[in-house]
Amino acid sequence: MKFTSLARECRVTSGRHFRLADHDPANTDGIAGKKEAVEALAKGVARMDELQERLYAQNRWSVLIILQAMDAAGKDSAIEHVMSGLNPQGCEVYSFKSPSAEELDHDFLWRCTCRLPRRGRIGIFNRSYYEETLVVKVHPELLGVQKLPPVLVTKDIWDQRYEDIRSFERHLARNGTVVLKFFLHVSREEQRRRFLARLEEPAKHWKFSAADLAERARWDDYMAAYEETIRQTATKEAPWHVVPADHKWFTRLVIAEAINARLEQLDLAFPELPAAEQKKLKAARAALSGEKS
Amino acid sequence: MKFTSLARECRVTSGRHFRLADHDPANTDGIAGKKEAVEALAKGVARMDELQERLYAQNRWSVLIILQAMDAAGKDSAIEHVMSGLNPQGCEVYSFKSPSAEELDHDFLWRCTCRLPRRGRIGIFNRSYYEETLVVKVHPELLGVQKLPPVLVTKDIWDQRYEDIRSFERHLARNGTVVLKFFLHVSREEQRRRFLARLEEPAKHWKFSAADLAERARWDDYMAAYEETIRQTATKEAPWHVVPADHKWFTRLVIAEAINARLEQLDLAFPELPAAEQKKLKAARAALSGEKS
Repeated sequence: MKFTSLARECRVTSGRHFRLADHDPANTDGIAGKKEAVEALAKGVARMDELQERLYAQNRWSVLIILQAMDAAGKDSAIEHVMSGLNPQGCEVYSFKSPSAEELDHDFLWRCTCRLPRRGRIGIFNRSYYEETLVVKVHPELLGVQKLPPVLVTKDIWDQRYEDIRSFERHLARNGTVVLKFFLHVSREEQRRRFLARLEEPAKHWKFSAADLAERARWDDYMAAYEETIRQTATKEAPWHVVPADHKWFTRLVIAEAINARLEQLDLAFPELPAAEQKKLKAARAALSGEKS
Repeated sequence: MKFTSLARECRVTSGRHFRLADHDPANTDGIAGKKEAVEALAKGVARMDELQERLYAQNRWSVLIILQAMDAAGKDSAIEHVMSGLNPQGCEVYSFKSPSAEELDHDFLWRCTCRLPRRGRIGIFNRSYYEETLVVKVHPELLGVQKLPPVLVTKDIWDQRYEDIRSFERHLARNGTVVLKFFLHVSREEQRRRFLARLEEPAKHWKFSAADLAERARWDDYMAAYEETIRQTATKEAPWHVVPADHKWFTRLVIAEAINARLEQLDLAFPELPAAEQKKLKAARAALSGEKS
């Protein structure tokens, strides 16, 4: 029970007074250490599996989990550790890379919309349309490859994107998609350590690209873009969670607790069959029992 | 030139003072008769073909044309006659029928979003997400099959849908999709005549279903739903056109003129190659000319 406060503390439902500086990436908030966190995570994952089974059987709600972060903040490993206990039939992960030609031929929400989870499912977006106000804002030259009619590219474009994202998520919430957004908040120093570790371990070389250092050089611009994005798009119906990410075991526990806390609020239950259907089941049971074996 | 006013007269860009009763389904507004309209339509379709070629080559804008109407108002034949001159590579029609299980497992805009036209294309929706505030509003029991969590089905649902549609279309407009919406406004008496004609001609029997009469019986409810939908969703960036539909030759002409009028406002042009690319073309020309045949 003590862990329910973890999710609450990192939850941002209004951007009004949000400042990234108020959130410490190294926070481990009352957890004694890795061992305690790993045990708690195992319990959390088991609980999530139970809740997901109901979500799937009930087939009314869907859950959209969005993960955003700087490189090496732990998105991939969080997905692996938090979601591995789930039945893959009810859980799908989509990692958004550079947009394809077909994707650039549509509005910036389109490619994510097409991959939204169905009712009864948990969908995980590893990166998302939030890249549009993060990497694209830090590198506005990327707007040039988005094939927008030039007359539409004005100084209002970022405010328009924030507004469009808010409207989009409100629409999803109204139609049964629970939206949970996570920013894995890693410190610059911890990223340095993880990059070095990747470079020292051949099995992790594939995860490093020279371009990662160029992005790292824009650290302050990225932090400003994250802060503004969270300010503009944190809402009650689609809250952000600013998750301390310098300790991976803590990050994972917070994500699991936040998801469970939200799922517990839903009216998840196995569907009850109407009396007429119950009767058919009884008849089927009788028929099967009476069959000669 | 005289026809440009046709589109203007039926265009609704604000719902504030909109009343369906102000629009006469039998209007043919200054056109002498079918012959004149057919000739004008042929010119309009040829002009649309030219404009579409530029749209396609420029690959910046996309055009979304939405057709909504009561049965037998002439949607299918309007598509056939207005769009048949277009290069099918740059034009796609999608007819929305009853939603599939997968479609019902998503929010009500989802299935249409996935079929939005790419940049450079004209997409035609024969019916659309507007069914959600038309047939579903007339038959609210349809909400029951949409698998929404019951807690989300409140008396606000129609206002929420209008708002979500407005936000969605604003987003499309901001990202380069020109949205043009047409309500083919047929009179009750003309629908009666067309239904009878279908019943009398075996080749048209497939177009008639007994359910059509049940919908016809709800005529006034449908007209109220159309009026409210147009009031709530007519905007400058995504105008409605209330097209008189008792005379098909007039309907088609108005649709063609409205599309052309909007396309003419865009900065459609064949892309000009930069000097360096021009030089390469020159070299290619020289190489091809010098080849031994």
